[in-house]
Amino acid sequence: MKFLHTADWHIGRKLNGFSLLEEQRDAFEKMLQVATEQDVDAIVVAGDLYDRSMPSVEAVELLNTMMIEMNLVHKFPVLAISGNHDSATRLSTGSPWLEKEQFYLYTQLEQFFSPVVVGDTQFFLLPYIEPVHARLYFNDDTLVTIPLVMERLMTEAKSLFLPDKYHVLVSHFFVTGACKSESETPLEVGGLSSVPADMFELFDYVALGHLHDKNALNNQASIKYSGSLLKYSLSERNQDKGVRVVTLKDDGVESQFIPIAPLRDVALLRGEFSELTDYEFYQDVNRENYIAVELTDKTSVPNALSELRQIYPRMISLERISEQKDITDERYDDIEIKKVSPKEVIANYFEDVTDESLTTKQHDWLEEVLIGVEKEK
Amino acid sequence: MKFLHTADWHIGRKLNGFSLLEEQRDAFEKMLQVATEQDVDAIVVAGDLYDRSMPSVEAVELLNTMMIEMNLVHKFPVLAISGNHDSATRLSTGSPWLEKEQFYLYTQLEQFFSPVVVGDTQFFLLPYIEPVHARLYFNDDTLVTIPLVMERLMTEAKSLFLPDKYHVLVSHFFVTGACKSESETPLEVGGLSSVPADMFELFDYVALGHLHDKNALNNQASIKYSGSLLKYSLSERNQDKGVRVVTLKDDGVESQFIPIAPLRDVALLRGEFSELTDYEFYQDVNRENYIAVELTDKTSVPNALSELRQIYPRMISLERISEQKDITDERYDDIEIKKVSPKEVIANYFEDVTDESLTTKQHDWLEEVLIGVEKEK
Repeated sequence: MKFLHTADWHIGRKLNGFSLLEEQRDAFEKMLQVATEQDVDAIVVAGDLYDRSMPSVEAVELLNTMMIEMNLVHKFPVLAISGNHDSATRLSTGSPWLEKEQFYLYTQLEQFFSPVVVGDTQFFLLPYIEPVHARLYFNDDTLVTIPLVMERLMTEAKSLFLPDKYHVLVSHFFVTGACKSESETPLEVGGLSSVPADMFELFDYVALGHLHDKNALNNQASIKYSGSLLKYSLSERNQDKGVRVVTLKDDGVESQFIPIAPLRDVALLRGEFSELTDYEFYQDVNRENYIAVELTDKTSVPNALSELRQIYPRMISLERISEQKDITDERYDDIEIKKVSPKEVIANYFEDVTDESLTTKQHDWLEEVLIGVEKEK
Repeated sequence: MKFLHTADWHIGRKLNGFSLLEEQRDAFEKMLQVATEQDVDAIVVAGDLYDRSMPSVEAVELLNTMMIEMNLVHKFPVLAISGNHDSATRLSTGSPWLEKEQFYLYTQLEQFFSPVVVGDTQFFLLPYIEPVHARLYFNDDTLVTIPLVMERLMTEAKSLFLPDKYHVLVSHFFVTGACKSESETPLEVGGLSSVPADMFELFDYVALGHLHDKNALNNQASIKYSGSLLKYSLSERNQDKGVRVVTLKDDGVESQFIPIAPLRDVALLRGEFSELTDYEFYQDVNRENYIAVELTDKTSVPNALSELRQIYPRMISLERISEQKDITDERYDDIEIKKVSPKEVIANYFEDVTDESLTTKQHDWLEEVLIGVEKEK
């Protein structure tokens, strides 16, 4: 058995307001190329196919196309589960028909007990669930945490093991040992949600989704996150993104990470405004990328956002990281302010921020506004 | 060929706030029973499967179940199109897999040109479209109205006719001759949207959806609306709901309407409050139904809504249809009002509406409020 392990597609996700559909389509096509070149026997998708339980119509359109491409056009058997970002019900639409073409899209706990055999391997597909689902299913009130649920499920799984097959678990949880990054939604408060990795020892391989960093469980040989298909937050900017190609053999598992270059990357630029807007500097920058800017200027820069956006059209954030010029001086002190007129306060503040005085026209406007305010009191 | 013709399921629709999912599930099961008893060769669903382009998760769950029941459990070939209430993209999810089991769910204009053969019949499935879709598809700017589009489509269809088959059109439009009821959404302003029935003469049968009244085109022998599965507005209360069973024979088409009794009906009660709340009266009323109430009382009835709801738990509306006691007399005349105090105006109005005077306590409250109002001026 040789399969491709991917997860956390988050189709429809936006990066600070920018649609990533184009990047997602591109990464998917590259993934499909890997699957073809590596001649895998199946594609495993470990949850969070969509970014939201109610995806946009554009997101639905893209995932529909991807599903057709993988399974109907390229004829790959697919083993997929719903993650915490997916609506189990919505994602399950059509799934009983999909199964007839070896596209297994499991969204309910019950389905875990119907493992799927593809070739020499038995796949146990465990969609993302809350403990309450297990309590209802087993009619057992003691299953109050995910580790307790998982323990029970592992016992059940073992009883279903076909002895002459490899055993793979596909799941979408936070497994202990992993480091969280910014763009996962916390599963449960209080640390009760994480699952100790040793619980999964009975499996030849555990294909995990949920954490976006492929190295989140790097100390485990056969329990792996694939990581997300793309960088979905600035905190993921230094993570390699791609897919895993997993080979199960009698002498053990072999797992290879194959990077996928994004159509547009996520990057951080740090420097003074004058530097970042200097042609000598930015001619070497890939300005098509999603760029977070950290300005180190000591003084304020008027219109920084709009000017930087001219140069970096996909700027995702702008932060000032220098100590800003201290404008909380005595003039803004609560007591002092009471001694000066509102007009003076505003004029001084304007001067501090822009390093310019109000023009006569601005003075007139300000006066007009203040009179209006006074009237409305 | 013998098929069942249904349309306008509107799964997820609410009736004045009441969920109809239970009624919809029930009507669907009865429909399936008709299909089984009549031993039909196929089920035709002429659009508006969902009530909204973004259906609730409960609606998705129900339609998913219904689809499985019809096609995978009962093995009926299904020929369905999207209506103006459906999102074509969302509804199309899974459809390429569904087709492999003879579940044809067409949502795009292009699919019209791939008619489906089931037994001795060629089905042309035309989902609801806007003229712009046809303009783009044919690259023809002159297709500005639905009748123009339809004319073009009929010509194209004819060229695809298999001569040794019956020809059925499944479509979701307003066909002229029909009477609109309250609960269809108008397709287009200006009357440009309706299609003259004679345009469809080339077909042996035209299975229409969109209008909820099965008799909307009663003058046509082979062009029929099935009507909606349930009564979806008060204006439909006198319409029989059900499905059509259509038989195509060499000597013509035979179409039989088979009524389906709803789990809960929609009814109108008209009378005086004292009558509608009298046990002698309401013991003969099916109080499980969705009931619209028209009160004929001459004087106002305090708390009518809440008291009637005690007796009729699924009351969908309450209207006063009597001439109410004329309280627009001289006391409320704009000029006269200025001569009396606000307190007097309110006290008089209260008396008119309730036939009771303000109590001392109410007088005190009123005074208190009026003083508060005066202060805030």
